[in-house]
Amino acid sequence: MADSEPLSSLDGDPMATEALLWDVFGIIVDEAIQKGTSACEKVCEWKEPEELKELLDLELRSQGESKEQILERCRTVIRYSVKTCHPRFFNQLFSGLDPHSLAGRIITESLNTSQYTYEIAPVFILMEEEVLKKLRALVGWSFGDGVFCPGGSISNMYAMNLARYQRYPDCKQRGLRSLPLLALFTSEECHYSIKKGAAFLGLGTDSVRVVKADERGKMIPEDLERQISLAEAEGAVPFLVSATSGTTVLGAFDPLEAIADVCQRHGLWLHVDAAWGGSVLLSQTHRHLLDGIQRANSVAWNPHKFLTAGLQCSALLLQDTSNLLKRCHGSQASYLFQQDKFYDVALDTGDKVVQCGRRVDCLKLWLMWKAQGGQGLEQRVDQAFALARYLVEEIKKREGFELVMEPEFVNVCFWFVPPSLRGKQESPDYSEKLAKVAPVLKERMVKEGSMMIGYQPHGARANFFRMVVVNPMLTQADMDFLLDELERLGQDL
Amino acid sequence: MADSEPLSSLDGDPMATEALLWDVFGIIVDEAIQKGTSACEKVCEWKEPEELKELLDLELRSQGESKEQILERCRTVIRYSVKTCHPRFFNQLFSGLDPHSLAGRIITESLNTSQYTYEIAPVFILMEEEVLKKLRALVGWSFGDGVFCPGGSISNMYAMNLARYQRYPDCKQRGLRSLPLLALFTSEECHYSIKKGAAFLGLGTDSVRVVKADERGKMIPEDLERQISLAEAEGAVPFLVSATSGTTVLGAFDPLEAIADVCQRHGLWLHVDAAWGGSVLLSQTHRHLLDGIQRANSVAWNPHKFLTAGLQCSALLLQDTSNLLKRCHGSQASYLFQQDKFYDVALDTGDKVVQCGRRVDCLKLWLMWKAQGGQGLEQRVDQAFALARYLVEEIKKREGFELVMEPEFVNVCFWFVPPSLRGKQESPDYSEKLAKVAPVLKERMVKEGSMMIGYQPHGARANFFRMVVVNPMLTQADMDFLLDELERLGQDL
Repeated sequence: MADSEPLSSLDGDPMATEALLWDVFGIIVDEAIQKGTSACEKVCEWKEPEELKELLDLELRSQGESKEQILERCRTVIRYSVKTCHPRFFNQLFSGLDPHSLAGRIITESLNTSQYTYEIAPVFILMEEEVLKKLRALVGWSFGDGVFCPGGSISNMYAMNLARYQRYPDCKQRGLRSLPLLALFTSEECHYSIKKGAAFLGLGTDSVRVVKADERGKMIPEDLERQISLAEAEGAVPFLVSATSGTTVLGAFDPLEAIADVCQRHGLWLHVDAAWGGSVLLSQTHRHLLDGIQRANSVAWNPHKFLTAGLQCSALLLQDTSNLLKRCHGSQASYLFQQDKFYDVALDTGDKVVQCGRRVDCLKLWLMWKAQGGQGLEQRVDQAFALARYLVEEIKKREGFELVMEPEFVNVCFWFVPPSLRGKQESPDYSEKLAKVAPVLKERMVKEGSMMIGYQPHGARANFFRMVVVNPMLTQADMDFLLDELERLGQDL
Repeated sequence: MADSEPLSSLDGDPMATEALLWDVFGIIVDEAIQKGTSACEKVCEWKEPEELKELLDLELRSQGESKEQILERCRTVIRYSVKTCHPRFFNQLFSGLDPHSLAGRIITESLNTSQYTYEIAPVFILMEEEVLKKLRALVGWSFGDGVFCPGGSISNMYAMNLARYQRYPDCKQRGLRSLPLLALFTSEECHYSIKKGAAFLGLGTDSVRVVKADERGKMIPEDLERQISLAEAEGAVPFLVSATSGTTVLGAFDPLEAIADVCQRHGLWLHVDAAWGGSVLLSQTHRHLLDGIQRANSVAWNPHKFLTAGLQCSALLLQDTSNLLKRCHGSQASYLFQQDKFYDVALDTGDKVVQCGRRVDCLKLWLMWKAQGGQGLEQRVDQAFALARYLVEEIKKREGFELVMEPEFVNVCFWFVPPSLRGKQESPDYSEKLAKVAPVLKERMVKEGSMMIGYQPHGARANFFRMVVVNPMLTQADMDFLLDELERLGQDL
């Protein structure tokens, strides 16, 4: 090789690298942070897909581009992206910007390592352990195990796999065909990942027995008992109950104590999908919603939702102290997890998981926690509850708004009833007409860029809005804005 | 609620947020970018776990901390982290810093959205499609499907799940117990995720039939035929072959044309795990190593490895045009994937995957590609091959170094034979003594922070070093350094 120089203008040129990154930082601060969180700016800049494709000029070509072109591309990408940190983004179970978490995420990206060995991630191996210990302590456990997963759905799958392995360790080697027909139980309000997980893990969606929920969306323990008996009568072996703390639409909390009693009686693994509601454990005032969670075998908790830790930050917590994670998922690959290392290889986490490389998801949460303290995070949770309560009272006062139900969490579900439908509740096509309101308003708000809020049908209920109060920047004025804006957008309907 | 102001000093205070982020950017540029990629600095600052715990003060407390304390914590985290972008980090299948990729990753973190709907990720939905199209074109497909997964292991699992679903769609609902005993085939040199995946998907590790590899680590097609016959004779139904393009240790490429012939004859799904080697497709000179890949049904390719795109960037590519991904993984959750939206919901990717929220992994690769062009990336690949070749020739020239084999990729496997063992190859305890050399040298280099290179045993072969030439900053001088440094560290052994 004649040329031992680096190849392109930037590789190995620290000055150019730094200059580029400083320019990009500037664009991010201006466009994503400043404008992206300002109520004076749009929450989104809607374009039809075909037009957006042209604006983005997505094609990947042979020739590289200049720094100026690249910086312009950065601006364009940000301009047409939805601003999920914006105070008018109410669309998902995450919203808002925590600057410390963002700082942690940027450091994580700059260090670009994998969470599998102490050798290449010494700080993060120890940090993950400490963060998980703290989350477990909030659940009520002074011991246990855990790991950060790529999302709550995969945390739920992990729990299902661990539960079946604990009961039938043979399964790992011999597969499900060596096992009896298995059954797991969750409520009709559960997250769809339970069924997706059952299919992926080879159990099949039929193995998911759906337990009835009450009118507030909470699992009915008596029906759980009944479903267990039914499954047994059909020759299936119950092995797991997945309860939900904070359902996706209604924000309901399953009665964990009663469910734990049932699990105890039948010897079933209790998993709590607290992806959304787990962060309530930080609040002395509200944590009673999860009473009984300490009796679970496993808990999935996503601090990227209520705690604004940034996508993704999903903890799977276990009460287990028998090294179940490693026994269930380990493969002892000698080329990565050598046993003749000069440090204690028990620190290596790679064999706890089914992935190989694993992102570092602990630093963002740790840094935010260090900055806010547990108290600061608790205040955020309490403030969100208080704002949700304020919104509920405002909805009750205003004509044209109707609560779906009194919420117990920060999901506030309600209909906007436009002028033409008011007082027509008894009309036979009322529900059909009401169902069309939310999609129309959604289209209008997105095309104006004034706000974003989700809607969905739910059982027999026609499309309603689901407000999610989670962005720590929100104030009462934002709640008022939400209602005013729906009135404005829907006044001609 | 009396107080409608944001709660903590930073929430909602754009000036403080910006000031913090600028300070953090400065720390990152100084510590992670400048020092982290300078050969004059250490690649790692080794501390024993107990000492490191104290230095990090990991405990999460009730009280928050000041900005100054937080900035100091950022510095400490970076200081004690391994510098994977450093020119002396040869430890994994990833290394090096691409500034454009890092820019893309920081923008991704700042925008903090999820890749599931056009509604909240319009730019990234279109971008992911374009990037996948480009990767498919390099495989040789002008059509198909795909998705970015959280790591190559999960890409491999996806392929296994899709293959069984395509053959037995009933499996999704009824589970594996309704199916005959299944068998899949991969070589003894395959990545451990195949067995982990088989266990996780409920197939069991016994369903993985291990095919022999030749002395260079390539799957032997004749043994594949034999294993298929054997499995059938035992009553199992073969459904998938997972070939590897770029094995983890030796960097071997399985003979895809011959394997595709076998798959075609038996009607088997051909998956190619090209997580490591896929990027060779960019090189006109070297892409012949993957000849036949266009006959695969699915390909896993991790641009975060050879292309320095940043963890994680893992594409699963499919030749399928029948919407198999959505049929296999979809659950039609009405609260997220409403069908009455005002745009074409076929754009939404959420039902292609088993996760719910999904990170944006396309921007970093897209931006890097735009900046470098396909030509720039091709040059990187070719340069890495050339440097690996240079290293091989140097190893042959030097006393005390012995190649494990002539490499065909950028994994260069070799022994360092210390002075006391030279000429003792015939001694009965030679191999046992040689096995202890690499761990000792590894400890020394890590404790000095001079470089990091991995080692492992392999079959009957004693521990040897695996050099990975992937960082685009590397030059011949770094290759010379590697050998000089091993000589220096091992001169007394």
